[in-house]
Amino acid sequence: MNRRKIAIGIDIGGTNTAFGFIDEHGKCIYQSSILTNPEMQADLLFERLFQETKNIFKKFEDKNELIGIGIGAPNGNYYTGTIEHSPNLGWGYVNVIEIVKKYYSVPAVLTNDANAAAIGEMIFGAAKGMKNFIVITLGTGLGSGIVVNGKLVYGADGFAGEIGHTIIDIDGRECGCGRKGCLETYASATGICRTVFELIGNTNLPSELRNISFNQLTAKNISDAANRGDKLALQAFDYTARILGLRLADSVAYLSPEAIILFGGLALAGDLIIVPTKKYMEEYMLNIFKNKVEILPSKLPGSTAAILGASALIWNELAKK
Amino acid sequence: MNRRKIAIGIDIGGTNTAFGFIDEHGKCIYQSSILTNPEMQADLLFERLFQETKNIFKKFEDKNELIGIGIGAPNGNYYTGTIEHSPNLGWGYVNVIEIVKKYYSVPAVLTNDANAAAIGEMIFGAAKGMKNFIVITLGTGLGSGIVVNGKLVYGADGFAGEIGHTIIDIDGRECGCGRKGCLETYASATGICRTVFELIGNTNLPSELRNISFNQLTAKNISDAANRGDKLALQAFDYTARILGLRLADSVAYLSPEAIILFGGLALAGDLIIVPTKKYMEEYMLNIFKNKVEILPSKLPGSTAAILGASALIWNELAKK
Repeated sequence: MNRRKIAIGIDIGGTNTAFGFIDEHGKCIYQSSILTNPEMQADLLFERLFQETKNIFKKFEDKNELIGIGIGAPNGNYYTGTIEHSPNLGWGYVNVIEIVKKYYSVPAVLTNDANAAAIGEMIFGAAKGMKNFIVITLGTGLGSGIVVNGKLVYGADGFAGEIGHTIIDIDGRECGCGRKGCLETYASATGICRTVFELIGNTNLPSELRNISFNQLTAKNISDAANRGDKLALQAFDYTARILGLRLADSVAYLSPEAIILFGGLALAGDLIIVPTKKYMEEYMLNIFKNKVEILPSKLPGSTAAILGASALIWNELAKK
Repeated sequence: MNRRKIAIGIDIGGTNTAFGFIDEHGKCIYQSSILTNPEMQADLLFERLFQETKNIFKKFEDKNELIGIGIGAPNGNYYTGTIEHSPNLGWGYVNVIEIVKKYYSVPAVLTNDANAAAIGEMIFGAAKGMKNFIVITLGTGLGSGIVVNGKLVYGADGFAGEIGHTIIDIDGRECGCGRKGCLETYASATGICRTVFELIGNTNLPSELRNISFNQLTAKNISDAANRGDKLALQAFDYTARILGLRLADSVAYLSPEAIILFGGLALAGDLIIVPTKKYMEEYMLNIFKNKVEILPSKLPGSTAAILGASALIWNELAKK
């Protein structure tokens, strides 16, 4: 009997490292996670991780064949297989693919989390069958994965697709990258929290959000308030959507995609963010592109999206051959 | 004896249509131009044009084999082979490739002028051997051609690469596209003329340019004045470079190219525009990209650049096979 082909998808985050065994149809056979412990050496994470994946795989080895390992990680570089100076991990420079080879002889592929999400949407999600699209991840920051002619754009050095660090206002909000006014300081889960606090300071709009401290405020709080008709929360969505819509109109001028897919924390607000972003994108768009580009929510299931995306790196590599 | 392979390169402009016979090394064997006469039907242009190319080709037919026709034209669409609603030509919708087939049976390729310039730089010019680069044409407007993994980015509809119509300031200068604040209203030969007039209005800087009307002012006047130390002209270059540098830093965040190549009228100012643009691009750039991306002047010879670029479409198509 032919064994079913499966890939391991790994998503390395600052707190947790999630992993799962995924078949070529995107079915997750097993998933779990361990603590990343980034304060310890990277080798130790992979030692614990692969001990666990090897133990688990034994249980279904007879019916399944492992064909590859896909890894998404902040600042992961597809070309070099290294994680380079990720502020969230603090490891400096780690050759991930070399470490994987100590444990496994199957092909392994690394890229950053937003690129993994883009490949995930193409293989299993909202971008199935599309050749030209952009995935925007709206989490703590704003990540992006750009697909042109069915291939992810890595650029000359492997780091293309940093739309979150294009500049909206050179005198704008301080960004974690050391500059000012980057898109992600406005359009992200953190960005909309900053907007709420700016509106609290600048307006007299009554709002339930006036009872929450900045450190406790989440994008979920804001969308819940907006759904209850909270005017300040609604204004925060409108402001966020205007800036995101403007930059997406620019992105269309660069790349003319079929669709732009929103993924991650703030995207869970659904129509609250998608409807006004689409409205502003159309308003700011060059005539020849109007009414051609959809804005779609991610179709990867929330709980497994990141590991599905990571495993899709492998399914995508195999599809190239 | 094997005949030398040659392609026809055609550059359709609002006033003139230039054409030439180019070999695979970029050598121009013959070149000329005719009036476009856009007020007459498009068919009539191609009838006059191909009558001429056929007559000329007879003179060297014995030693040369025609292998294709490359055409650059405003709003030329690679996918459909059509010129679509070009404001400068006013023809509405013209199926160029279908017209060419009435005269020639060799392969014919159409794209817009900036894309033709990008392919021209890749095959014959400053981007030889590069896989990821952007060509910016600084003429009446700002055109751009984006190359990723050695292929031109056409996007879903064939119109990708409109960096000139990304927005710098939503309340900014009126653009020919009907919107406000597009990059090309600042960074182009026309853009720098507008900047000079703004500076004349807003400052008391003495300048020889105060003697020239807007309709007579050219980018060449401004660079000549700047080379003589004219403070207002120098400030106009600085302002232009700051806006262009900012948007190029953003472009690097999208695409991570090896180089950005400046082409066309304003690019002839050389270091006057390249040096400050590079300075501002580095200043506004995300850390991981700093000191990786060159800004280079076009290496296509001025007099034949457009037809070389158009012919390169054919040499590039053949290279794909």
